[in-house]
Amino acid sequence: MSYPARTVAILGLGLIGGSLACALRRSGFSQRFIAYAHREPSLRRGVELGIIDDFTLDLDEVIAQADILVLCAPTLVAADMLREILPKVAQAVHSPVITDVASVKGNLYAAALEVSGSMPPKLVLAHPIAGSERSGVDAADADLFVNHRVIVTPVEGNDEAAVELVRAMWASTGAEVVDMTVSGHDAVLAATSHLPHVLAYALVDSLAQSDSSEDIFRFAAGGFRDFTRIASSDPVMWRDIAIANKSALLASIDAFGAHLSGLRQAVEAQDGERLLDTFSRAKQARDAFAALLAERGQDPAQG
Amino acid sequence: MSYPARTVAILGLGLIGGSLACALRRSGFSQRFIAYAHREPSLRRGVELGIIDDFTLDLDEVIAQADILVLCAPTLVAADMLREILPKVAQAVHSPVITDVASVKGNLYAAALEVSGSMPPKLVLAHPIAGSERSGVDAADADLFVNHRVIVTPVEGNDEAAVELVRAMWASTGAEVVDMTVSGHDAVLAATSHLPHVLAYALVDSLAQSDSSEDIFRFAAGGFRDFTRIASSDPVMWRDIAIANKSALLASIDAFGAHLSGLRQAVEAQDGERLLDTFSRAKQARDAFAALLAERGQDPAQG
Repeated sequence: MSYPARTVAILGLGLIGGSLACALRRSGFSQRFIAYAHREPSLRRGVELGIIDDFTLDLDEVIAQADILVLCAPTLVAADMLREILPKVAQAVHSPVITDVASVKGNLYAAALEVSGSMPPKLVLAHPIAGSERSGVDAADADLFVNHRVIVTPVEGNDEAAVELVRAMWASTGAEVVDMTVSGHDAVLAATSHLPHVLAYALVDSLAQSDSSEDIFRFAAGGFRDFTRIASSDPVMWRDIAIANKSALLASIDAFGAHLSGLRQAVEAQDGERLLDTFSRAKQARDAFAALLAERGQDPAQG
Repeated sequence: MSYPARTVAILGLGLIGGSLACALRRSGFSQRFIAYAHREPSLRRGVELGIIDDFTLDLDEVIAQADILVLCAPTLVAADMLREILPKVAQAVHSPVITDVASVKGNLYAAALEVSGSMPPKLVLAHPIAGSERSGVDAADADLFVNHRVIVTPVEGNDEAAVELVRAMWASTGAEVVDMTVSGHDAVLAATSHLPHVLAYALVDSLAQSDSSEDIFRFAAGGFRDFTRIASSDPVMWRDIAIANKSALLASIDAFGAHLSGLRQAVEAQDGERLLDTFSRAKQARDAFAALLAERGQDPAQG
């Protein structure tokens, strides 16, 4: 039997990398999974759990052995790793396809151009829109990507066979693979994910610092719980994303700020018509979005 | 057997009024429930469902028959109703206790002062912090208030027996009854409920009006779904709340705006330390809040 990739290497073995290895083993995309990280514990655990077959702390070795290198480190660490890997790969006889799973694409693209001068043909950036409240390799789940979107952002200079291999890898996990531009990806993710996280963090911190914060949290109810759930996300991860996606995030904050300030004016002017128009349009868009998610089979009961 | 109240009258029979009648019948707080509204359909349905025993479209009649009048109309309609009721009650031989369930207290207090010159002793404002995505009398649920907070806002001039009766009524539904001032209530609700609704509406409408709105909603995922759930709330109800709680809501929007603008600066300056501090403080506050809700028995699994 032949596999699309003989050896898949996961660089940084946590929830996403572990889940990817499980999914790819199950789908038959590959039969050999190795992992690399700066430290051993998660790697040892990965072998214990049967998620990976082997590991190394030697970057040259993982590059030499792999057909695909998947950078599964957090956003800023992934950029540093890429800067370290690209010069090594450029000199290697055997050159693997390199891809990643980070939440921002522009900073990795910029790092690649900075290091290599032009886009390395076999570097194909990608981002699976999936996650879990759990983290670490112990939470690895072969079903994590099923019915979720994976955005691949091929650019001019990419090797078409490399792009196809990355698309095929994600398709084999049960995900729906779609293409976007690097800047399109970063703008859409800023709007739908990075901005909401910043808003939730800003709201909770603002309330926590208010004089009546004790009463505030005592009387908050279900709507507030849902609205602020994402403020329980990992602060380090979100600091890195806010830094990596600076310009798209600033544009999103500003667009939102202008909209909020219009609503503020309507509240001040007791402009019921404008408030009702805005709230009604928003409800319509939100209901349509909930219907879309339900159709896609993602927690329809949760609306 | 004697009941704390012989006859309870629900003015405006929907989810909240219907659920209150069901809960009070079950608890034995009263054995006779009547309802009043401008139109018949919900009232007829209430009788069919056995939630109320009788109804009337005549305001004088409902005032004459009831020991407690519970205004269950939406925020601004409740204020209008109060303006209509108070002069009638002032002239009635038999004067019932009057209370309400609206989301804002300051506008009702102001309406009472405007109509009566001073606080009518038997008008006791209150607000159950409970709701459902369903609405209408068909969704009535005797358990709706169990383990939820009801805020009672007694003021100088209130009759202590009337305040006690309203507290006892809510306690009998299984709710936890707490006192707050009128302005304290409106400030806390602005922060924990009215502001989040405005933010969610503003975000969804801002994204829906952007050029890439189609992509945005296609790629939004679970975090976005939770964050925007409250933007599916009833626009008319929220327009009324935004108008009724104008000053506390403006203060909340401004406090949030200042906080967001600080975070924006940190993003622009790539100030990782400030971002991490803010995100970490927010996560800590949000986690503590989730633990509090879990302790209280409100959907712990939902965190």
